[in-house]
Amino acid sequence: MYSMEENKMKVILAIVQDKDSQQLQTHLVKADFRATRLPSTGGFLKAGNSTFIIGVEDDKVDDALEVIKKTCHTRTQFVTSTFALPEAAGINDPIEVQVGGATCFILPVDKFVRF
Amino acid sequence: MYSMEENKMKVILAIVQDKDSQQLQTHLVKADFRATRLPSTGGFLKAGNSTFIIGVEDDKVDDALEVIKKTCHTRTQFVTSTFALPEAAGINDPIEVQVGGATCFILPVDKFVRF
Amino acid sequence: MYSMEENKMKVILAIVQDKDSQQLQTHLVKADFRATRLPSTGGFLKAGNSTFIIGVEDDKVDDALEVIKKTCHTRTQFVTSTFALPEAAGINDPIEVQVGGATCFILPVDKFVRF
Ligand code: NI
Ligand code: NI
Ligand code: NI
Repeated sequence: MYSMEENKMKVILAIVQDKDSQQLQTHLVKADFRATRLPSTGGFLKAGNSTFIIGVEDDKVDDALEVIKKTCHTRTQFVTSTFALPEAAGINDPIEVQVGGATCFILPVDKFVRF
Repeated sequence: MYSMEENKMKVILAIVQDKDSQQLQTHLVKADFRATRLPSTGGFLKAGNSTFIIGVEDDKVDDALEVIKKTCHTRTQFVTSTFALPEAAGINDPIEVQVGGATCFILPVDKFVRF
Repeated sequence: MYSMEENKMKVILAIVQDKDSQQLQTHLVKADFRATRLPSTGGFLKAGNSTFIIGVEDDKVDDALEVIKKTCHTRTQFVTSTFALPEAAGINDPIEVQVGGATCFILPVDKFVRF
C-alpha cells in the first residue's frame, strides 16, 4: 500500500521568533534535518513567530534540539532607538531588549510514510 | 544540554472559527495558558478558521478545554441580511445561522523544552 | 463537561505541494474525511507546500493515506518551457520534471472532543 520506514520517528513542534526563523531553516538544512515552517502568531513569544514541524529519527532528536537552541535561544541585544524610550534614557543611549527563545514539543509518531 | 520540565505536558490542537479566534486567544491568556495561533482553512468548519497549538500540563487539560468550550462552542445567531435570503423570508426578517464550534485533539508529548 | 467520542482517533500531519493541495482537499471531502489546511513553506518539498491536519479514526488511517498517495505521490511531468532550458535541448523540447510528493506523520491522540 505505502512505504513505511523502520526507524522510530518523532515530530518536533518548535515555536520560534520570526527574526530567528530564516536562520533556523538554514541551520537545520545544513545539519540534514527537514523542517516545514508555518506562520503563526501570539502566545509563547511576544513578537511574530513561526512554527516548525521537524520530522526526525528518535536518536537525532537531541541533535535537532541543539540546532534550535544554538540558533534561537533567548538572549539580550542592545538596540539604539529614537522612539519609545523610557524617560530616563538619553535619545541615543542603547537599550537592552530580550530576543529569541524557542518552545519545543517532541511528539511521538505512530507511523511515518512518504509517497 | 537543554532544560527539561518535569510536569507531563500535552499539546491541544484546537481548530476554531476565525470569528472566535481573537477572543479565544484573550481568554486563554487570562487563564494563564499559552497558545500559538496558525491561520488555516477548510475542513472541520465551513467558515475561515484558525488552528491553535496550546501547550498545557496534564492536569490543566480540562481547564483549557473548558475555556475553548465557553468561547467557541457551536451556537445559533440571528442575523439580519438584505441579500441571499430564502424566498419566503421578508427583506428584514432576521434569520438563524449556526456559528462557532471547536474541534480539539489532545496529543501526548514525549518531552517539552524551552530555550 | 465536554463530549468525548469513543473511537480511537489519530491525527495525520500531511505535508504536500501546493499544486496538489486543492485536489487533496476535494478528494478527502469526497471520501468523508475532514481536513484542515495550513499554509507552509520549505523543508520536505522544494516548491511551496501546505500542511494538512486530518483527524481520522484508527481503522480509517490507511484509507486516508491511500487518498493522499493517489492525489499527491511523486511523479514526473513533461513541460515545454521556452526559458531556463539546458543548452542541449531545443527550444520547444519538453523536459521532464518531478512534481508532487507527500510526507505524512501519523500521531497518536489521547482524547478528541468537539464543542
Ligand atoms: Ni549561520
Ligand atoms: Ni471575554
Ligand atoms: Ni479528482
